[in-house]
Amino acid sequence: MTALTDLQRLIQAHRRGSSLAQPFYQDPGVFEAEVDAFLEAHWIIAGHVSEIPQQGDYFVFEALKASVIVVRGADGGIHAVHNVCRHRGAKICDEPVGRTALFRCRYHGWSYRLDGELAAWRHMPENLNKGDYSLRRCGVTVFEGLIFVSLKPQEAPDPAVMLSQVRAHWARFDLGQCKVALTQVYRIAANWKLGVENNLECYHCLPSHPEYTSVNAFVRSDERLSPSIVEAFGNYQTEWQARMAAANIPTGRTGFITTKGQACRAGVWPLAPGHLTGSRDGRGVAPLLGKIAGYDESVTTGCFGFLSYMAAMCDYAIVATYVPQSVDITHVVMRWLVRADAVEGEDYDLANLRWLWDETTQQDKGIIELNAAGVASRGYVPGPYSKLESMTADFVDRYLTLMAETA
Amino acid sequence: MTALTDLQRLIQAHRRGSSLAQPFYQDPGVFEAEVDAFLEAHWIIAGHVSEIPQQGDYFVFEALKASVIVVRGADGGIHAVHNVCRHRGAKICDEPVGRTALFRCRYHGWSYRLDGELAAWRHMPENLNKGDYSLRRCGVTVFEGLIFVSLKPQEAPDPAVMLSQVRAHWARFDLGQCKVALTQVYRIAANWKLGVENNLECYHCLPSHPEYTSVNAFVRSDERLSPSIVEAFGNYQTEWQARMAAANIPTGRTGFITTKGQACRAGVWPLAPGHLTGSRDGRGVAPLLGKIAGYDESVTTGCFGFLSYMAAMCDYAIVATYVPQSVDITHVVMRWLVRADAVEGEDYDLANLRWLWDETTQQDKGIIELNAAGVASRGYVPGPYSKLESMTADFVDRYLTLMAETA
Amino acid sequence: MTALTDLQRLIQAHRRGSSLAQPFYQDPGVFEAEVDAFLEAHWIIAGHVSEIPQQGDYFVFEALKASVIVVRGADGGIHAVHNVCRHRGAKICDEPVGRTALFRCRYHGWSYRLDGELAAWRHMPENLNKGDYSLRRCGVTVFEGLIFVSLKPQEAPDPAVMLSQVRAHWARFDLGQCKVALTQVYRIAANWKLGVENNLECYHCLPSHPEYTSVNAFVRSDERLSPSIVEAFGNYQTEWQARMAAANIPTGRTGFITTKGQACRAGVWPLAPGHLTGSRDGRGVAPLLGKIAGYDESVTTGCFGFLSYMAAMCDYAIVATYVPQSVDITHVVMRWLVRADAVEGEDYDLANLRWLWDETTQQDKGIIELNAAGVASRGYVPGPYSKLESMTADFVDRYLTLMAETA
Repeated sequence: MTALTDLQRLIQAHRRGSSLAQPFYQDPGVFEAEVDAFLEAHWIIAGHVSEIPQQGDYFVFEALKASVIVVRGADGGIHAVHNVCRHRGAKICDEPVGRTALFRCRYHGWSYRLDGELAAWRHMPENLNKGDYSLRRCGVTVFEGLIFVSLKPQEAPDPAVMLSQVRAHWARFDLGQCKVALTQVYRIAANWKLGVENNLECYHCLPSHPEYTSVNAFVRSDERLSPSIVEAFGNYQTEWQARMAAANIPTGRTGFITTKGQACRAGVWPLAPGHLTGSRDGRGVAPLLGKIAGYDESVTTGCFGFLSYMAAMCDYAIVATYVPQSVDITHVVMRWLVRADAVEGEDYDLANLRWLWDETTQQDKGIIELNAAGVASRGYVPGPYSKLESMTADFVDRYLTLMAETA
Repeated sequence: MTALTDLQRLIQAHRRGSSLAQPFYQDPGVFEAEVDAFLEAHWIIAGHVSEIPQQGDYFVFEALKASVIVVRGADGGIHAVHNVCRHRGAKICDEPVGRTALFRCRYHGWSYRLDGELAAWRHMPENLNKGDYSLRRCGVTVFEGLIFVSLKPQEAPDPAVMLSQVRAHWARFDLGQCKVALTQVYRIAANWKLGVENNLECYHCLPSHPEYTSVNAFVRSDERLSPSIVEAFGNYQTEWQARMAAANIPTGRTGFITTKGQACRAGVWPLAPGHLTGSRDGRGVAPLLGKIAGYDESVTTGCFGFLSYMAAMCDYAIVATYVPQSVDITHVVMRWLVRADAVEGEDYDLANLRWLWDETTQQDKGIIELNAAGVASRGYVPGPYSKLESMTADFVDRYLTLMAETA
Repeated sequence: MTALTDLQRLIQAHRRGSSLAQPFYQDPGVFEAEVDAFLEAHWIIAGHVSEIPQQGDYFVFEALKASVIVVRGADGGIHAVHNVCRHRGAKICDEPVGRTALFRCRYHGWSYRLDGELAAWRHMPENLNKGDYSLRRCGVTVFEGLIFVSLKPQEAPDPAVMLSQVRAHWARFDLGQCKVALTQVYRIAANWKLGVENNLECYHCLPSHPEYTSVNAFVRSDERLSPSIVEAFGNYQTEWQARMAAANIPTGRTGFITTKGQACRAGVWPLAPGHLTGSRDGRGVAPLLGKIAGYDESVTTGCFGFLSYMAAMCDYAIVATYVPQSVDITHVVMRWLVRADAVEGEDYDLANLRWLWDETTQQDKGIIELNAAGVASRGYVPGPYSKLESMTADFVDRYLTLMAETA
């Protein structure tokens, strides 16, 4: 296990523009240091408000070796509290979802209100104050229906600042009025950074993602497969941008808003010609979202720090969260959002809706795990990023800066 | 892994009256330190003499990352020796129980007598002395038919002193004349101390153990569920104590006899009114033990150090041993004892006999594992013990004192 | 985990002539130190040329936490390269065997020629030189058709010196003209040294290997089971040696040729009277190898360092490689070689061919794993080697010398 002094040496030995050294992907000590340094404070999308519509509805969010109850409170607000009894530490909710009036620890019967306040205990010393034994609170921020949780709220970035420049991009989808049509969890046997590195570049799309490539014209254009492809995409993009401008919808990418190391941005891009949305045949798969009057062949994408990503098309959105479980296991939790009033089987078909992102994520699981197997080998040495991996290289730089500051 | 200096810091940081910090429950280094400090010397109940009635009968006792053969010797005495060949260390007995005349290592054929003495080897250098290569001996003490083993006998507590004040409590059951009607092993995915903390308090009985609570009236009384329950129990207890005194049977609890950190005591308590023994319907489940002439509605309980516990009613006894396997796995081995001459199917029914303690131990497994899951979380902080957990708090104090002395 | 200073202390505490202390068999830190110290440079038999006859045929060799592609190149030569893309480290070949024209990384499409040279990449910074990004090369040496691989060729022993004195012993079998009739992998849950210690002594053969003992008369003779057995074997050996001398075939054992810690030797021995080869009924099991005109009841054995062993009889040979996977997992890869032109079902029967070494290796797996279970116990202490374990004792000495030099 890498001691902190060794970690600083590793950080200094890193060659800019190349992938990380082996211990960053394998060493449990590095993982602990990351959680302490910034992951614990990081805002992570834990779910969507529609998953807990009624008072007392809750789900359990397991991340970073913590277990958190996310619950709709008596006031209609959302609370996130550690799923650990303040008496002797028993886990309180054993089921992943449920509805309750009180959280009651099965071990000794201590009970807690929906906001985590201790409601009842028995036979405790008189000098103890019940008010000191609420369930430990996590930070909660709701943005467009997405529930962000921070395990260390006192050090969490300011969400108002963090989200300031991306609000405009997401407003027209009314994601807060959506429902989760489908959730899938992909268990990836790899360090979380290998997942994020994958997510942040499309250099692998041409060899690995035929479906994604067919839906997103920029892949073939960026690859400069032929001058005619580049020119055709350029023409299409110009025409599409003019349409978007006429409709008063921003295109292109915002700058990064970085708040305590958590970097956010968003962008709007054209889909492939002939694609109304991310679907196999290019046709729509669900009712138009929010305030959208007609298909405009766009996809809006964005990140919220290292672990939370979103992509919205005119009729559905996906939310992907990389949830680190340990140094070598990461859950990718993928949610598909559609209008809240859409009816499955009538307004949308799950197989159609899921197609693009399920195929793509399964393929990513395969290549990320090949990557994990390779970096675990004695034969691995860090290698150079391509020009199409600039966002991945940028992630590695930001990551190392955070680690250097705090280690 | 926690270094010894960190361990001392953790011990000093402990706040009296609260549960232990996370590393005590999770860190393999702490477990190694515990084994070195006191567990290896500790007397642990490994079995009962009736399990190895004939010369050469043996069973293998796996504990604390050691494997020990417990065997009836040629002289009728009981020996305990490490199950590891003195040649190159092969495990000798691979089966959990058996009968043999000699222990013969399957690897190179070295053989050992029942007391562990090397009987035969071949082709060894002439300057070596066979007498130096007996199987390494563990300590053995037999008390009321229970076989106690110490892996480090030279540092083990003196059993005569340790048992001095509890002998009188156990004598009338003639447990040495019993047989093991049933053995069950409950594999608990938790540190052994979480098991012991559970064992030593009945604060959890009301929420977790309806069967146990129905059989033992003190639970509802201690909980002070109503003044009438407390009063009724007080009246019943007074009447029962008078009956016991008339029969010349001690009641109440002995003090702790602590010998090199191993604390023993015993006590005698009334069962719930209408309960002759620990059974579903309150009726007897087996022939009366030992010298007992008639049911007296009592249960005699006691501990022998941290890991071994016993409870005897008028017609059966249970022996529960917490056997640490690693930092996060503990086997609870539960034996049900009945008169040696009782016949299964005629004198007792296994399902009836097992009911109370099997139900209770399965429930305990569930809540102890919830506790383990919670203390493993980043959200865990030690919490305060209630007034009904004084013996658990006392255990933690004794444990920390032992660790502080030796670390 | 054992730090390097502790390792030196352990080495100094070793008592010559006895087995190793527990950490040598269990500690992941010791395993890492061994790989760094000498295992990585060590030549290990990875396969046989007949397994990759055509250009582009390859197999993957997984050893010492590395993954290596062994491939027949465009020039007909054999190459061994790390199975790790030089871009971001993805594993390239996921299948254990195959045939290809180029190695193409599935992740981002980088492709490599059969000799590991980078053939194509895309969108890389102009200042990078493709020639700097070949797959990392391992050392390859082919001897009698056996492919030896070294993961750290710059520190590998000189194969010409290493093999100099054993060439004559192997020449007559023409093993380079053989084929692999059968490969079996035995997964052994034990440290590699427990496997090697087992391999290097026949003290365990009498108690553990009835089949091997029946085929090799020396076992009973070495054991001196009776004066008549010793005398009969002596007479037989004298007669056999005269026959071998008449045929101009060397007998007995070479000295050790040790090159950078890798020790080789070979020897020729008589089988049991009435045994033409290592078979159940003593009769031949396959066509005579190479230049051999008739059965001479011999077995030629040899080692190539610590991990690679060979035994050839007149009609088949076996190659056994101990391939360390981690501190506590070792694969024994066993190959049976017969003439390349022998036809299965006509010239040889797999069940007959496999019998001796499959039975023997399964038995060895059993006793090596008993040994591993025993040395893992708290009750283990190192024990003395017998007079029939001199080669095992010699191995331990050589091993400790290498560790002392480099630690």
